[in-house]
Amino acid sequence: MTEIGGATRVYALLGDPIAQVRAPGLLNPVLTRRGTDAVLVPVHAAPADLTQVVRGLQRVANLHGMLVTVPHKAAVLDLADRASDRARLAGSANALRREPDGTWTADTFDGDGFVRGLAQAGHHPRGRRACVVGAGGAGSAIAVALLDAGVAELRLSDTDPGRLETLRRRLWAAYPGRVGATVLPRLADADLAVNATPLGLCPDDPPPFAVAELPADAVVADIIMTPAETVLLAEARARGLLAHPGEPMLAHQIDAYLTFFGL
Amino acid sequence: MTEIGGATRVYALLGDPIAQVRAPGLLNPVLTRRGTDAVLVPVHAAPADLTQVVRGLQRVANLHGMLVTVPHKAAVLDLADRASDRARLAGSANALRREPDGTWTADTFDGDGFVRGLAQAGHHPRGRRACVVGAGGAGSAIAVALLDAGVAELRLSDTDPGRLETLRRRLWAAYPGRVGATVLPRLADADLAVNATPLGLCPDDPPPFAVAELPADAVVADIIMTPAETVLLAEARARGLLAHPGEPMLAHQIDAYLTFFGL
Repeated sequence: MTEIGGATRVYALLGDPIAQVRAPGLLNPVLTRRGTDAVLVPVHAAPADLTQVVRGLQRVANLHGMLVTVPHKAAVLDLADRASDRARLAGSANALRREPDGTWTADTFDGDGFVRGLAQAGHHPRGRRACVVGAGGAGSAIAVALLDAGVAELRLSDTDPGRLETLRRRLWAAYPGRVGATVLPRLADADLAVNATPLGLCPDDPPPFAVAELPADAVVADIIMTPAETVLLAEARARGLLAHPGEPMLAHQIDAYLTFFGL
Repeated sequence: MTEIGGATRVYALLGDPIAQVRAPGLLNPVLTRRGTDAVLVPVHAAPADLTQVVRGLQRVANLHGMLVTVPHKAAVLDLADRASDRARLAGSANALRREPDGTWTADTFDGDGFVRGLAQAGHHPRGRRACVVGAGGAGSAIAVALLDAGVAELRLSDTDPGRLETLRRRLWAAYPGRVGATVLPRLADADLAVNATPLGLCPDDPPPFAVAELPADAVVADIIMTPAETVLLAEARARGLLAHPGEPMLAHQIDAYLTFFGL
């Protein structure tokens, strides 16, 4: 699909692991169809190597941007020269862009992509009670976007109490009265429960939360894209709940990426 | 042509400038035809940034090798953990490979590709007098390969007397009695004259040497690939000399790259 020449603009997708990422397979055909001479390349960087890899890539003159996935979304914020308000609020970024002056700007599109995918599937979160399980890069971005989209109550959960409280406090300051946090999710009266942990990438992973605790009309959303049908979503379906997969979050970000990168 | 997914093996082609490089356009379709899930990506690194870029790329776990072009072929030798005999002799490398233990091995295929391309065009250099103009990365590799191929006399030229003498001394030690060096090339009785300088990449470049000084049956070879017909080759043809373009040198390296990288 992609014809790569010396003049092709290069974009990197940073993650660890990397084999499961879907963005190159989604984005590169779009670039080819549009006649845009650019390519998105998967870049496998371990957390201990992230700074060296990013600092190296930032010196590559034909590399104009980076997409960022698990587990680097928080760490890359410190490697950008500036960040959007929503990225700073979430404490995470999933896209970095080289500016004409050589500096780097970070933004996050996860939350916006997630809410747009959810709304298009008929589950607009406005006025609902939403549990977001996982206060990492994607979870924090989704939390910000759900609050912006008008959830009545946002309930954060994470197994790391320190990380959880840091995010809760930052979000509470921006959206007072609508943010709660517990290590174990309060699911009993939730309208929406989102897995924003990496649990589900491996078939042996334990479930991120117990779907049995949710009300019968709740929506269970997963941000895992590979496999498309996670154990969590299969369990939700088996109990008659609405299951929302990970791919729409990414699919609804493609246009945002293209705009952000000026492609 | 190339379908890139998360599991695709990544190879980088380092150069400055980069837009003119031909290797991605040649190698990627070969990989696709062979069903090999790997991609070669152009990486534009300025000399001052080379170390930082290479050190960053060496930490990218799904990046398994690098190809190297002007002006980095000498500098990358110091960024590898070991090098082949011919690369050390030439003082330059155009390929680096990650070993299973994470260390990096350098080799050079320019010279071998050049001689094979020349021989296939009917100009085997055995027993001939050859001038190589440009003692940089490609020129030094070509000089080693011409000596290995049995030239009677190798004449090196370079505008930098220090670089020229360093290479002459190293080659003389390995091929005593067959290596000469002058800043200006001695063309009057040469059988073959090779442009191994970057002169010709830009249409306004001065010619690397004066084809008018060559005998009527000499071969003029250029390593410049873009444009395919350099001013030098056009001049040689206009005077009735045999003109040998840059592309065969690269085309004859493709199989060697694939073998070196285990693809």
